[in-house]
Amino acid sequence: MPIKKTLAALAVGAMMAVSPAALAQTIGVSIPAATHGWTGGLNWHAAQAQARLQELYPDINIILVTADGPAQQANDLEDLVSIHNIDALVVLPFESEPLTDPVRQVKESGVFVTVVDRGLAQEGIEDVYVAGNNPELGRVSGEYFLTRLGDGDNIVILRGIPTTIDDERFNAFLETIEGSGINVLDHAHANWNRDDGFEVMQDFLSRFPRIDGVWAQDDDIALGVIEAIRQADRVDEMFVVGGAGMKEVIAMVMQGSELIPVNVLYPPAMIATAMDVTVSHFKSNGPVTGEYILGAPLITPENAEQYYFPDSPF
Amino acid sequence: MPIKKTLAALAVGAMMAVSPAALAQTIGVSIPAATHGWTGGLNWHAAQAQARLQELYPDINIILVTADGPAQQANDLEDLVSIHNIDALVVLPFESEPLTDPVRQVKESGVFVTVVDRGLAQEGIEDVYVAGNNPELGRVSGEYFLTRLGDGDNIVILRGIPTTIDDERFNAFLETIEGSGINVLDHAHANWNRDDGFEVMQDFLSRFPRIDGVWAQDDDIALGVIEAIRQADRVDEMFVVGGAGMKEVIAMVMQGSELIPVNVLYPPAMIATAMDVTVSHFKSNGPVTGEYILGAPLITPENAEQYYFPDSPF
Repeated sequence: MPIKKTLAALAVGAMMAVSPAALAQTIGVSIPAATHGWTGGLNWHAAQAQARLQELYPDINIILVTADGPAQQANDLEDLVSIHNIDALVVLPFESEPLTDPVRQVKESGVFVTVVDRGLAQEGIEDVYVAGNNPELGRVSGEYFLTRLGDGDNIVILRGIPTTIDDERFNAFLETIEGSGINVLDHAHANWNRDDGFEVMQDFLSRFPRIDGVWAQDDDIALGVIEAIRQADRVDEMFVVGGAGMKEVIAMVMQGSELIPVNVLYPPAMIATAMDVTVSHFKSNGPVTGEYILGAPLITPENAEQYYFPDSPF
Repeated sequence: MPIKKTLAALAVGAMMAVSPAALAQTIGVSIPAATHGWTGGLNWHAAQAQARLQELYPDINIILVTADGPAQQANDLEDLVSIHNIDALVVLPFESEPLTDPVRQVKESGVFVTVVDRGLAQEGIEDVYVAGNNPELGRVSGEYFLTRLGDGDNIVILRGIPTTIDDERFNAFLETIEGSGINVLDHAHANWNRDDGFEVMQDFLSRFPRIDGVWAQDDDIALGVIEAIRQADRVDEMFVVGGAGMKEVIAMVMQGSELIPVNVLYPPAMIATAMDVTVSHFKSNGPVTGEYILGAPLITPENAEQYYFPDSPF
């Protein structure tokens, strides 16, 4: 198939001076398999974007492959180039280090490369980088706490896995609430995990008689936190702010929940944004090379609908 | 017309629970009039994107307005909201300060706002910011000089209008060539202007008997520099690197010119990128809110064709 396509392209190219954009383009999309909530959403949104973009552009062919680990993803990249003859790659690397060389090899073969979310271990390989904004997620969350709480109010913080991402979120949040008089009673790592969120929150609830707000910074953690609060029968005492845009959480925001009044976006749908700009590289007169750092907007009952995808697993 | 459209939209909305994205959207695009080369290109690319996007999406209506100054642009914004009832605005502000309040008022009326190139005087008003990358332009230019010149070679630098933009470009260039032994014989402001570029270069040529390279950092300046070099009959002595992606300059790069071997992109076509992501806000499952900072790729004979728009005035 790719050989046939290439020959046809050469024949057309020889017959008339068509621009490269007028020929069919094949775009490979390589992402981690749907092993947990966020990657489940990632896979769903990638498939949605694939269907939408192929319908919009009959001459755009999108091949979506999912990997169970870095080694399989490296193999996928080789196949996308050698078998499918891709013109562009959209890749969310399983891990930064082991995918850096494989992505560089794709780039060196002449393919346009868009990297999503997790950066490579070396700068300058990709043409486009699309990612969320972790300091912004911390800042926007902190600003919401400032609108709800003030001098003498008590909060607890549940952190993620100890990483740069977690530090960026945490430091930006603390800087934002600095000087407000809000007490941070304690903070502990809950590893972006529902069970850990439950256990850490149970401990906080047993130690602190009055908690006004919980910054869980992640929706998986937040679900565990909510369960602990419900079991302790202290639902009316506090509010919880997670982060990501999980559909169950967005649904609570839409319904005007007092326990989960808002959310902050760090969406798996960013894979669709990356696919959009990659297609634009072939279809638009606007340049796309560069860094697209998505915001972390506050999701409120007023705007929640645009972030709610009921059919997505996340 | 807008009233009719709104009534029709309301009627459809009342009859069935359609998602807002399924209704027609009106997008206003407000840019400076084509007073010089770069804004000429800006207007051409905005019109190209308007035609392309309206053909692609029959339910997207784009209204393109151009202003001769900040006051007229502020009036345009009012009209886009009150008369055309826009759902989104793409604006390249004439100047930052006088347009900040008018754009904020558009945002506060519920319109989705994308700001291009020149930022507003206050952060956080727009939903999306699309811009070029000035430090990157300096760095990429400097890296090209490192591939051509070394210890003991002589260059001169022509700067723009004294502004933050100029400082960012200049400082990044100097940092990049630091330690290479390349001599910067002198630098002077040529104000992104062809005539000034000619005069400054004439002075350099009269004072320095051997110049190996000229960093003009801008294509208008570069055209003046080339004229001065030609009049001095020293074309074979040196090369000139401009910046922006002016079609005359890209054409020289494509033809393998030794005087203008490369260019660095800072494209007026970024207005099309901004229009693309604004349309995606209504049409894509991917989020678009955030900062899209376009790269400043090196344009070489190998890749120049994709940056060459022969019908554009710039």
